[in-house]
Amino acid sequence: MTDRFTPTPADRFTFGLWTVGWRGNDPFGDATRPVLDPVESVERLAELGAHGVTFHDDDLIPFGSDGKERARLVGRFKDALERTGMKVPMATTNLFTHPVFKDGGFTSNDRDVRRFALRKVIRNIDLAAELGASTYVAWGGREGAESGGAKDVRLALDRMKEAFDLLGDYVTEQGYDLRFAIEPKPNEPRGDILLPTIGHALAFIERLERPEMVGVNPETGHEQMAGLNFPHGIAQALWAGKLFHIDLNGQSGIKYDQDFRFGAGDLRQAFWLVDLLETAGYDGSLHFDFKPVRTDGIDGVWESAKNCMRNYLILKERAAAFRADPAVQEALTASRLHELARPTADDGLKALLADTSAYENFDATAAAERSMAFEALDQLAMEHLLGVR
Amino acid sequence: MTDRFTPTPADRFTFGLWTVGWRGNDPFGDATRPVLDPVESVERLAELGAHGVTFHDDDLIPFGSDGKERARLVGRFKDALERTGMKVPMATTNLFTHPVFKDGGFTSNDRDVRRFALRKVIRNIDLAAELGASTYVAWGGREGAESGGAKDVRLALDRMKEAFDLLGDYVTEQGYDLRFAIEPKPNEPRGDILLPTIGHALAFIERLERPEMVGVNPETGHEQMAGLNFPHGIAQALWAGKLFHIDLNGQSGIKYDQDFRFGAGDLRQAFWLVDLLETAGYDGSLHFDFKPVRTDGIDGVWESAKNCMRNYLILKERAAAFRADPAVQEALTASRLHELARPTADDGLKALLADTSAYENFDATAAAERSMAFEALDQLAMEHLLGVR
Amino acid sequence: MTDRFTPTPADRFTFGLWTVGWRGNDPFGDATRPVLDPVESVERLAELGAHGVTFHDDDLIPFGSDGKERARLVGRFKDALERTGMKVPMATTNLFTHPVFKDGGFTSNDRDVRRFALRKVIRNIDLAAELGASTYVAWGGREGAESGGAKDVRLALDRMKEAFDLLGDYVTEQGYDLRFAIEPKPNEPRGDILLPTIGHALAFIERLERPEMVGVNPETGHEQMAGLNFPHGIAQALWAGKLFHIDLNGQSGIKYDQDFRFGAGDLRQAFWLVDLLETAGYDGSLHFDFKPVRTDGIDGVWESAKNCMRNYLILKERAAAFRADPAVQEALTASRLHELARPTADDGLKALLADTSAYENFDATAAAERSMAFEALDQLAMEHLLGVR
Amino acid sequence: MTDRFTPTPADRFTFGLWTVGWRGNDPFGDATRPVLDPVESVERLAELGAHGVTFHDDDLIPFGSDGKERARLVGRFKDALERTGMKVPMATTNLFTHPVFKDGGFTSNDRDVRRFALRKVIRNIDLAAELGASTYVAWGGREGAESGGAKDVRLALDRMKEAFDLLGDYVTEQGYDLRFAIEPKPNEPRGDILLPTIGHALAFIERLERPEMVGVNPETGHEQMAGLNFPHGIAQALWAGKLFHIDLNGQSGIKYDQDFRFGAGDLRQAFWLVDLLETAGYDGSLHFDFKPVRTDGIDGVWESAKNCMRNYLILKERAAAFRADPAVQEALTASRLHELARPTADDGLKALLADTSAYENFDATAAAERSMAFEALDQLAMEHLLGVR
Repeated sequence: MTDRFTPTPADRFTFGLWTVGWRGNDPFGDATRPVLDPVESVERLAELGAHGVTFHDDDLIPFGSDGKERARLVGRFKDALERTGMKVPMATTNLFTHPVFKDGGFTSNDRDVRRFALRKVIRNIDLAAELGASTYVAWGGREGAESGGAKDVRLALDRMKEAFDLLGDYVTEQGYDLRFAIEPKPNEPRGDILLPTIGHALAFIERLERPEMVGVNPETGHEQMAGLNFPHGIAQALWAGKLFHIDLNGQSGIKYDQDFRFGAGDLRQAFWLVDLLETAGYDGSLHFDFKPVRTDGIDGVWESAKNCMRNYLILKERAAAFRADPAVQEALTASRLHELARPTADDGLKALLADTSAYENFDATAAAERSMAFEALDQLAMEHLLGVR
Repeated sequence: MTDRFTPTPADRFTFGLWTVGWRGNDPFGDATRPVLDPVESVERLAELGAHGVTFHDDDLIPFGSDGKERARLVGRFKDALERTGMKVPMATTNLFTHPVFKDGGFTSNDRDVRRFALRKVIRNIDLAAELGASTYVAWGGREGAESGGAKDVRLALDRMKEAFDLLGDYVTEQGYDLRFAIEPKPNEPRGDILLPTIGHALAFIERLERPEMVGVNPETGHEQMAGLNFPHGIAQALWAGKLFHIDLNGQSGIKYDQDFRFGAGDLRQAFWLVDLLETAGYDGSLHFDFKPVRTDGIDGVWESAKNCMRNYLILKERAAAFRADPAVQEALTASRLHELARPTADDGLKALLADTSAYENFDATAAAERSMAFEALDQLAMEHLLGVR
Repeated sequence: MTDRFTPTPADRFTFGLWTVGWRGNDPFGDATRPVLDPVESVERLAELGAHGVTFHDDDLIPFGSDGKERARLVGRFKDALERTGMKVPMATTNLFTHPVFKDGGFTSNDRDVRRFALRKVIRNIDLAAELGASTYVAWGGREGAESGGAKDVRLALDRMKEAFDLLGDYVTEQGYDLRFAIEPKPNEPRGDILLPTIGHALAFIERLERPEMVGVNPETGHEQMAGLNFPHGIAQALWAGKLFHIDLNGQSGIKYDQDFRFGAGDLRQAFWLVDLLETAGYDGSLHFDFKPVRTDGIDGVWESAKNCMRNYLILKERAAAFRADPAVQEALTASRLHELARPTADDGLKALLADTSAYENFDATAAAERSMAFEALDQLAMEHLLGVR
Repeated sequence: MTDRFTPTPADRFTFGLWTVGWRGNDPFGDATRPVLDPVESVERLAELGAHGVTFHDDDLIPFGSDGKERARLVGRFKDALERTGMKVPMATTNLFTHPVFKDGGFTSNDRDVRRFALRKVIRNIDLAAELGASTYVAWGGREGAESGGAKDVRLALDRMKEAFDLLGDYVTEQGYDLRFAIEPKPNEPRGDILLPTIGHALAFIERLERPEMVGVNPETGHEQMAGLNFPHGIAQALWAGKLFHIDLNGQSGIKYDQDFRFGAGDLRQAFWLVDLLETAGYDGSLHFDFKPVRTDGIDGVWESAKNCMRNYLILKERAAAFRADPAVQEALTASRLHELARPTADDGLKALLADTSAYENFDATAAAERSMAFEALDQLAMEHLLGVR
């Protein structure tokens, strides 16, 4: 069945091979689904209207494969891409599954693990470039610690910076048209992970040798695992010019990483997120990094993949209707959003200091009595979301 | 009774007037303690061995006081400082108590509230400079929102930047020797506060006109309200050269802002924090921003103030013993912390790429089998903390 | 404007006087709204379509009022009720605002505070009975501690039991038709509150002398402050026959108590809650215990009160449509909800033990392969909630 | 090295085979340690001074083993027990690892999975009884849901009750001296788990046919994952006479289930917990359910097992010193803990109602001014914990 919420490649929806391919193993349970062939994933996602796929090196080429096997796997993957028209806008490295990364990749206390990690990344950057990716994501899920003595965080940040500086050199020297996107996460699988939020990653980037090459790849659930407002974080990333990529999924509050399909979890934040991405003109991939619930068979995999996209399109329609509603425009004015757009002191510091109406004669009591009228505005949003206006 | 945990001014401990002066009103209850005279606070804290006090404008001079009353209040406060030798290393502005700030100070949707806020800050900066403060803290507790439409976060960050840029101009023009320190908090009293963590504040600072003038003032409980590891955040602030000030207190996990005395709450993080501050050579104020529990009378106020300092000194002794213990040195080596101090590729990118031992011939399985030996190291820390070694 | 989401008294919506009457004071800010006359609240809520109001003793009769003032206040309140037809289905006691309750009411370490608390409750029970209330709520917000030595929890539970046993005796002796409902909360204003969740309260009730007289009054935000699924908790309360009353509001995750209007916060849980209450045939009050945001004037108070009810009715319509949809019925069958309704061993223990198909010949691998088909079912719920089916 | 913190079997410390045997696989990583032979675990734990071991059926006898293999494995396990003198005070069932349990054991929507689960439990109960266990733990980690439609919680509780009633019948009929202990957990691996806290489990038990046979087995980290105070929960379980078993470990706040060694995580709660268990005369097993960090090799396994016990003994010494300190006794009196021990109305309801000093003439203002003196008391506890008194 096709309706106005059926996606097309123009919607720029992408999926990690590891998302639909997740077999359902969790800390307390074994896999519930069989291995999924990356080629099948490409084909099915293409049928569903996706724009492209993304991958960790090991998703496509199992760790330890020899050169011949690697070539075979890459070859048939490229064939599938060509056949379906699917793109690979992003790739990334698995620096977390193999036990060698148990203390991290770029910041492992083991120097030769760090060297191995860098080489592993570089190898996959070559493949990413070959496949036409423009973004290279770095999730440092193992960069962290469970106890205070185990990691000198300042040294670890030195090593993290060293890694991104080196990778920036490599990409520049190779002439690849590739930018990095750091994906923050507060914890799990480590007790505390370095660069735990969008903010920490943005701040870190400013200390790199090539900050312009590095942005962020925030994930809905990762920020919400710290109780943070995801649209607020995305707004700050956009404000900093650093939203290079985004991972959309669902999370029900502060707990283990749930990776529900987009729309599940905090639905109201999902609405405001779509509103923000659409009004801000974000034109990158809309990448779903989720896990189909392990209670379901392969039916649930394709059902949830379809619904990630569908929910985005429903929310997009609702957000557009919200913005177009004259009653909303009035409510925004009543809440004085237009005043927020105006500089506070466009008359300059000197004029502000001289303006007695700003301080000496300011009637704080009277000003305090003005209603911000936020309840009415928020209800309008609620009713657009629920489709009752 | 005096012992080795009795502080002296050389320990650089400071207290906000609003901490010991907190009267115990909370969202569900009225004040349980009478008003405390700032002069008494100065005297009592001096007796306890503190180095100085800090204040919001309204702590010293109630909102709406006229010029004469202001002069009187400032005069007797200065007398008390002189009499006791207490310093004022930091001051800040109350942009949250008066209802006029209900939607924020620097980012209120109301432009004239923003202008009033800036002028209020500037007025207190003059006093801060007069009293010899070197740090001016900005906690934007009301800069935020409860609903998605109420605040355009990108515009709000524009206004926030405008405010700090203007204040930087003002301080520069006046020739004050004053730096700003932004204090992040994730929520409460707003549903979500802008610049919610150390990371977000550090990132924001980089977009200012005078980033060198602005650092952070992290508070233990504020980061822990987001489930973040406080010593990790402090380490990143130190790494960025931005730890201009610090607010020490106690918090029991993700819930309302508790502001317990230092040491209460997460004791193990407190140990690692003191270890970090002392080994990193942080030489700023050790500022306690806490609230004596409202169940207690004035006895509890001075008891808890004394114990904030006492607990710091106990932990300082324990952290020093930990670092000096030869068994700890061995354990750190077993955990390969010395390798983390060494650059990953001090031989350069080219050599790394050519090093077949780094990748082609790297035995990941063998490397994975090396124990990081973190359990033993963490137990040593535990036993030093508990004083059983 | 009236539409199908405009309530009538038949909808059984009620409001606390303290909700619309909240003046906006919070831990960091003074009141932003003037005092609201309880009579005005009754009148305005009646106009909006509410069924009744509820109150703490001190909401109606300020603490310390003398007998004459008390009589006057009660008299005009009763007049307003009569005039408007509004009911008082529930009343409760304020054992938290006055500083005397700083360590609790029923479990204060001070025995005479406990005696005072009991007498205060009894006095208001008389008024509750006089006004026709059938439920008496007990929120023990101050029953708890900030530190481990301050409260012997087993003794405190003895005192809590003693209080409810005495109150049960009193109500029985007076012949009042009144049941008690305990309202759990995990923390705030105390560091940890006794009976922190629905579960703890349900378990406590079983140790009372008259368990049949005591049930629970769960509040949306209170359970969500512990990260718990509110509909799940309500289901267990219903299962135990103990849902005597309910407090509906909104909360955005684990943080301070937000008390947003119903619908705000976790919208998907709100949908499942309404679905549960309606399908379970809950016929008590639908009581809103919320706080209109303090950024708003009195306009926001009535706007939000109206929308609490409106959102309930919207969700009720959506939940009914979900249950009536044949595709949902099919999906429920595919997810085997009908099998959950069937006893596991209706053939008895002996037959189960003898059934080799249950164990010896059970093909676990084949059984594991059956999809639970939950993704499809959840998407149907999502689309009904969003009104796109 | 042996010192006063070296355990002996008289200390009643026990370990799950699955704890030291955990291989380090987590949601993002493969196992980092080899399989550990249960016999080796028994021997090593005996050497360390443990009293006994506990097991899930599948820990000892891999799922799907035939009768002969089962007999062989049980036989050599019994030999090891006999050789070492180790006991098996508790056993439990694995109803979570195999994919067949993806939707639960006792409450799976699949009726034949439920039947299989019951038979699997019964089979292991026979073995538990044979090995002399007196407690049978039930952790329903898969009993829950990720979405609202997937589980009818009231029906699921019916099925849960049916399961425990049947098992109670079985144990009674067999004449086993065995009691059940339900282990609550709020979430992970399910989005929300049924019976999420100690309170919910205690309440559920009251609805069983044989409530006297069923108690709780609370785990430190599980309660703390809901932000709850673990000693408070244990106190309520003791108060209800239902603390049949306990799982000790460490957790750093609200996040994924960390299972650190005992003492790690919230150290102050650990102190109060030991104080409670020791003063309440709990005489059951002190069972460690933890996971040695996966960064470590087998060295870390035995190191952490040893330190679970060591930390308990250190805290036990400290708690005893706290209770024995005359200054603490004075502080407890100052905080009026002795008044909490006295009934509120030992004079009866009638006398309370007639006592004008309790209400009419009660001076609330004066009573409110009495300090509870909790800051001083808590600092005494802190200093005993830190060993500086």
